[in-house]
Amino acid sequence: MPKTAVFGLGAMGYGIACSILRDGQTTFGFDIEPAQMARFCEEGGTEGRIEDIADTLDAVAVVVLNAAQTEAVLFGEFGVVPMLKKGAVVLACATVPPEFARAMEARCATQGVLYLDAPISGGAVKSAQGRLSIMASGTPEAFDAAKPVLDAIAETVFQLGDKAGPGSAMKAANQLLAGVHIATMAEALTFGMTQGVTPDRFVEVISKCAGSSWMLENRAPHIVDGDYTPLSAVNIWPKDLGIVLEIAQAAQFDAPITTAALQQFNAAVAMGLGREDDAAVAKVYARSAGLTLPGEDLDI
Amino acid sequence: MPKTAVFGLGAMGYGIACSILRDGQTTFGFDIEPAQMARFCEEGGTEGRIEDIADTLDAVAVVVLNAAQTEAVLFGEFGVVPMLKKGAVVLACATVPPEFARAMEARCATQGVLYLDAPISGGAVKSAQGRLSIMASGTPEAFDAAKPVLDAIAETVFQLGDKAGPGSAMKAANQLLAGVHIATMAEALTFGMTQGVTPDRFVEVISKCAGSSWMLENRAPHIVDGDYTPLSAVNIWPKDLGIVLEIAQAAQFDAPITTAALQQFNAAVAMGLGREDDAAVAKVYARSAGLTLPGEDLDI
Repeated sequence: MPKTAVFGLGAMGYGIACSILRDGQTTFGFDIEPAQMARFCEEGGTEGRIEDIADTLDAVAVVVLNAAQTEAVLFGEFGVVPMLKKGAVVLACATVPPEFARAMEARCATQGVLYLDAPISGGAVKSAQGRLSIMASGTPEAFDAAKPVLDAIAETVFQLGDKAGPGSAMKAANQLLAGVHIATMAEALTFGMTQGVTPDRFVEVISKCAGSSWMLENRAPHIVDGDYTPLSAVNIWPKDLGIVLEIAQAAQFDAPITTAALQQFNAAVAMGLGREDDAAVAKVYARSAGLTLPGEDLDI
Repeated sequence: MPKTAVFGLGAMGYGIACSILRDGQTTFGFDIEPAQMARFCEEGGTEGRIEDIADTLDAVAVVVLNAAQTEAVLFGEFGVVPMLKKGAVVLACATVPPEFARAMEARCATQGVLYLDAPISGGAVKSAQGRLSIMASGTPEAFDAAKPVLDAIAETVFQLGDKAGPGSAMKAANQLLAGVHIATMAEALTFGMTQGVTPDRFVEVISKCAGSSWMLENRAPHIVDGDYTPLSAVNIWPKDLGIVLEIAQAAQFDAPITTAALQQFNAAVAMGLGREDDAAVAKVYARSAGLTLPGEDLDI
């Protein structure tokens, strides 16, 4: 059985680590929160200091926030790549610019380490179930080496090319859509409220009409229920839409709708909603328009 | 069997008229294009001058472009409402401001005529099949009187309230989403192209991911095929998103994402694309970014 380490035991990483564990692999979990590492060991994760076990690993999954954290895990002061054995594979799961993914692939290659550009999609629930979608690209050797991990964590692996970059590009396009769709759901739901359309009736009707989206069907019920428990937090979107616009700017590509949606998420963060569920972007519209969302009247 | 007249034999109205005809009702069709009226009579529509037959009608479906055309049909120089018998019903199917719908309901009431606020959704194909979705509101009497027509043309009738207004409000919210989703699909697809993601791969992957929308699944294939035959034209969106923003402004509601999407459709019209399929909004992005969409290289 292969040995795997997962770096980053947040909502997505913890689910990935547990899925690999369920598959019977020896699995190490690393996180800046010692409590998360202890929790994972209680679930059956194997304890070990990275410098002691790195050269026994077959695969490393990096499930951190962004490019900077990915680079720190791989090549920082205590970076893991120089400690890995040749032929080991890195699965890089954060949303990052395609150019960054290509640079990481090249730096890994100088160490004889394989790199799979492997951004993930599906949310915390599917992560825990081992049913993620992965937008993957890399060499055939990287895909081969990553197969035991991919089999354990993913329902769908899109094979998007034979080098790093296309995986991250597709993920960025998906995030552009997902982020805009959440903010647009909030815009339309609150717009409807100004005309007397209640949020529950809005969801009931629109989810069966041409205005529906995956995100609307998934997130609008949170507003109806007044439940902003963070399944995916507002804070994700300034980060991910920021990456999209960074890539766009480098390509001299104008993305005005993404820009407008980003401003709404930035406004939500400024209102102190960063750690709430991303459906809370509706509160930006509600406050601006003087509307009371479901559950809000109870907060006063 | 009831007698019904359909005003407006465009893509949606022609399908509605044919659906009523298939149901066995005596059906008159009126349009500013005599050729469309002749075509409908060949299909079995009944000939007649409106002033001769108006007082025999049980129902009038108005399937025109906007509020101004609706008002002209109902109360203009040759307006039909003053000619109708008491208890006849008007089904108003255009996308209009809720306030306009309420005003029309009140004016019809002074003539003893019932009014159903009945915007339609589903597109030309479902219209022809009698399988539209209708976002309807009006008095119980209006619903009763409209039932034979609704049964003939709709798969789903959402009953949204007992007066005119909520139907048009829900339709406006749906159009907000649908229009933004089309433009965002175009933004994401062309953004992906700048990163080497081909349109066909984009559709294949994103339609299975959280970034998907009804409109993306429906319209993005038109771009992949390079086929801009207008199933629903670019010109619809400056009109419908304009109505959304008109309603929003009256409610002092700020809709920045809708505003951004409207600008892209306006740019498409300015490029001479108004009569192409609305997926042609992708050409605005492609031209700005120097990208060649599928099929475009053949046009040169």
